[in-house]
Amino acid sequence: MINWNNLDTLASYQELLKADRVNLKEVMTGESGAERVKKYSVPMAEGLVYNYAAKQVDDAILTDLAKLAEEAQLVEKFEELYNGAVINTGEKRLVLHHLVRGQLDKTVEADGVDKRVFYTSQQQKIAEFAKKVHAGEITNAAGEKFTTVVQIGIGGSDLGPRAIYLALENWAKKNGAFKMEAKFISNVDPDDAAAVLNSVDVAHSLFILVSKSGTTLETLTNESFVKDALKKAGLNASDHMVAVTSETSPLAKSDDYLTAFFMDDYIGGRYSSSSAVGGAVLSLAFGPEVFADFLDGAAAEDRLATNSDVLKNPSMLDALIGVYERNVLGYPCTAVLPYSQALSRFPAHLQQLDMESNGKSVNRFGERVSYETGPVIFGEPGTNGQHSFYQLLHQGTSIVPLQFIGYRKNQMETDVVIQDTTSQQKLCANVAAQIVAFACGKEDENRNKNFEGGRPSSIIIGDQVNPRTVGALLAHFENKVMFQGFVWNVNSFDQEGVQLGKILAKRVLAHDTDGALKVYSDLLNI
Amino acid sequence: MINWNNLDTLASYQELLKADRVNLKEVMTGESGAERVKKYSVPMAEGLVYNYAAKQVDDAILTDLAKLAEEAQLVEKFEELYNGAVINTGEKRLVLHHLVRGQLDKTVEADGVDKRVFYTSQQQKIAEFAKKVHAGEITNAAGEKFTTVVQIGIGGSDLGPRAIYLALENWAKKNGAFKMEAKFISNVDPDDAAAVLNSVDVAHSLFILVSKSGTTLETLTNESFVKDALKKAGLNASDHMVAVTSETSPLAKSDDYLTAFFMDDYIGGRYSSSSAVGGAVLSLAFGPEVFADFLDGAAAEDRLATNSDVLKNPSMLDALIGVYERNVLGYPCTAVLPYSQALSRFPAHLQQLDMESNGKSVNRFGERVSYETGPVIFGEPGTNGQHSFYQLLHQGTSIVPLQFIGYRKNQMETDVVIQDTTSQQKLCANVAAQIVAFACGKEDENRNKNFEGGRPSSIIIGDQVNPRTVGALLAHFENKVMFQGFVWNVNSFDQEGVQLGKILAKRVLAHDTDGALKVYSDLLNI
Repeated sequence: MINWNNLDTLASYQELLKADRVNLKEVMTGESGAERVKKYSVPMAEGLVYNYAAKQVDDAILTDLAKLAEEAQLVEKFEELYNGAVINTGEKRLVLHHLVRGQLDKTVEADGVDKRVFYTSQQQKIAEFAKKVHAGEITNAAGEKFTTVVQIGIGGSDLGPRAIYLALENWAKKNGAFKMEAKFISNVDPDDAAAVLNSVDVAHSLFILVSKSGTTLETLTNESFVKDALKKAGLNASDHMVAVTSETSPLAKSDDYLTAFFMDDYIGGRYSSSSAVGGAVLSLAFGPEVFADFLDGAAAEDRLATNSDVLKNPSMLDALIGVYERNVLGYPCTAVLPYSQALSRFPAHLQQLDMESNGKSVNRFGERVSYETGPVIFGEPGTNGQHSFYQLLHQGTSIVPLQFIGYRKNQMETDVVIQDTTSQQKLCANVAAQIVAFACGKEDENRNKNFEGGRPSSIIIGDQVNPRTVGALLAHFENKVMFQGFVWNVNSFDQEGVQLGKILAKRVLAHDTDGALKVYSDLLNI
Repeated sequence: MINWNNLDTLASYQELLKADRVNLKEVMTGESGAERVKKYSVPMAEGLVYNYAAKQVDDAILTDLAKLAEEAQLVEKFEELYNGAVINTGEKRLVLHHLVRGQLDKTVEADGVDKRVFYTSQQQKIAEFAKKVHAGEITNAAGEKFTTVVQIGIGGSDLGPRAIYLALENWAKKNGAFKMEAKFISNVDPDDAAAVLNSVDVAHSLFILVSKSGTTLETLTNESFVKDALKKAGLNASDHMVAVTSETSPLAKSDDYLTAFFMDDYIGGRYSSSSAVGGAVLSLAFGPEVFADFLDGAAAEDRLATNSDVLKNPSMLDALIGVYERNVLGYPCTAVLPYSQALSRFPAHLQQLDMESNGKSVNRFGERVSYETGPVIFGEPGTNGQHSFYQLLHQGTSIVPLQFIGYRKNQMETDVVIQDTTSQQKLCANVAAQIVAFACGKEDENRNKNFEGGRPSSIIIGDQVNPRTVGALLAHFENKVMFQGFVWNVNSFDQEGVQLGKILAKRVLAHDTDGALKVYSDLLNI
């Protein structure tokens, strides 16, 4: 039987609070550090490795974390989730993003439908559509091929698909998989849509309108913007637009679209990159085979998350170490630092994934929790960050745990040798050096040049950013966030804080305001 | 006489610690909130306004902050700085970025040179060069006009100029000021340079190599990358490259460049957008007149920072409220949230500006301080952020102070009316609504939909993102960070944490490693 208990009621958590702290600088120095790097490493899917040698843990803490995993029934809860329990208690919904990319156990039936069949059929529909577009069987009215795809969506309909597109764009160009350029319109700021429309050839562009409910104001506004532009170009908007939406939305059967691909309420926005939300744009940009590889990488990582041995379950281990840092060590933020330009927007996606999922103050039953939940997440790619905010990470008064990501090979296979090493070697040398510098510091009599160390980090190491490794990386973080939500006993799958803004903005637009809101509205001439 | 004392030794700080806290929800509700919005507002330069009604301050706290400003001699310290004192004690340097964009008082002489004359002469040299490029008097070897400018630099040579370019790109296109497209190469990841080079026509591109010392490894590596590409295209690299560097650097008199524009050691990287570092690329992209307007906006804001009345000095007030939030209220992060797509990379620049300047643990004399210094800074444009991490900002267990930025008009003057309002009105309605929602919350019996409020924010409101307002905005934050550095008694103008990484990466590349570093190097096949 599954028990949903608050973290601070668990005996294993009380033990963890009392456990001896690890002196990171000490254990990471010299031979001891070398042993830790070899020992504190877990294989992930697709050849990735999660290495946590430079985290403030040792065998005793790991034992306590294993007990916590067991007492909090993390693997059992995950099993309930992927087998179709109503895990999203706020909105009374199933949580099925794992099913979209494969299946861990039996299929799930909901609303009288075999959901595996439903998701697979949408993938096939997208694949056929994309192939026809690539083959010139679906064209504009003049019979010319579409060359660009533009995604119109916000939040989860934008950040994840955009981050993955950017991650794979150059890989696809190098590996003959690049079919169409993709662009993204998200912000209700009219300059966002205008700038994207100015940068594309609308006559050869296909627009994907993504809104689960079919009512997201930003997205519908941007759709009108695009329709105006198509009309001004003398084009028929419905020849250029497809919808990704739920079957019950007003968009589902509209004549305004060439076709519609469906998702459902069981896949939250920030978890929807694996669904039609990511599937349509990525299949059009890179071909359905690339998208299928991406899903396979994610599914392989999901399987690892079912392992009840915490030392063989990288996302669960990562989650537990994060809880230890947040609740026992008291660190309020985490930085995500990919040493790959291809992952430039991956931190922005993880920021949504993590902060929207676990930025909660009440537990699954609506009761205020008395411990910290989700941390602030931020990050930029290295080495850029090294020349920027790393100063605070090294010498600031706050300690910020770090999540590095590094790859042995670059994507484009062009490189240059300067001072006897390639750029890729310099990139890797930097990430390795940073991990050790953060942990061990560097003593100097000049206090200004003194580094105290003791700043924890982990690293995910892979061979290359490609469809399978990106899938595995994404699933790792989705599962990490899910496990942390289980530990904190919060519902990681609703987002009432996002809903609130929508309601209030409508009041302002209806001039139904008083007090401060009225004065701010006046200041902004609304 | 100027006294450099630690914050916790100041009598006014002790008073501030004892002052009654403000119940933000209470004071921002109803008529009281409306009065605060009208009253707690300070004019900035160029028609901008800094409104702090939704911060946790009242007249009593403001009086305490004014005392702190006086006791910490903030305005006097600023005066010392712009008149040429050695404020950067770590590197024993003057701090002259204010002089580059105007002059607040007498000029500064250093190293036997009138620095005003030096900076002005470089601006003129850049302006003349840019005009010749635009007029087709300086061309490629085939006599064809350059159409693209590519900045090669990292950290301060990248983030600030890139953020400002993006801020003004669409404004320039709309207002007939767009001369050349600009691109940026920064990361040592070879895929960054390769992707940018694939996206430009190298035969018609002018490259600006930016490195003060002429020794930054990332930048020199990327320069080689670019030179290879030019050579492969059958072009003479020196016909396509200019340098921005110090007069003493190895690049200064090299034949490898068409010409060189100079900066000096008195302008730190993160403060260098106003110098030749920003000047060359922005003058080429938009014309020297636009860059001059940007400098004028910054200079106008600088003048406000000399006012000893805290209620008339927006950057000093913003700084003091930030210190109150960091040291008295104990908030570890600040989010920067511009409601303008044009400012999409402005938060990344502010992240560097703030975290690299004040992420320090020792004071100006190298002594460990016993209070918190610079916070973690992060942000994304609204409304995008609303559909992402705002969940945690509204309902998370941590309180994150917010810095909103909003404009009445968009840049491109294309807009669309949906449900009776324009997109720009929707954008403004959202930011107004968010401020009030964060402060006042929203009660609901369903605890999941309950918002406690009490989350502080300020807003900078302006008419439009244009060269002058961007200059004023940048100067506001530069001066805010400087004032906070004075309060914390840290040196905001060095960055030893950035230097460390460079040294260690070289050791890895020389295989001069042992322990953990060796094993990580092996894992990454370096």
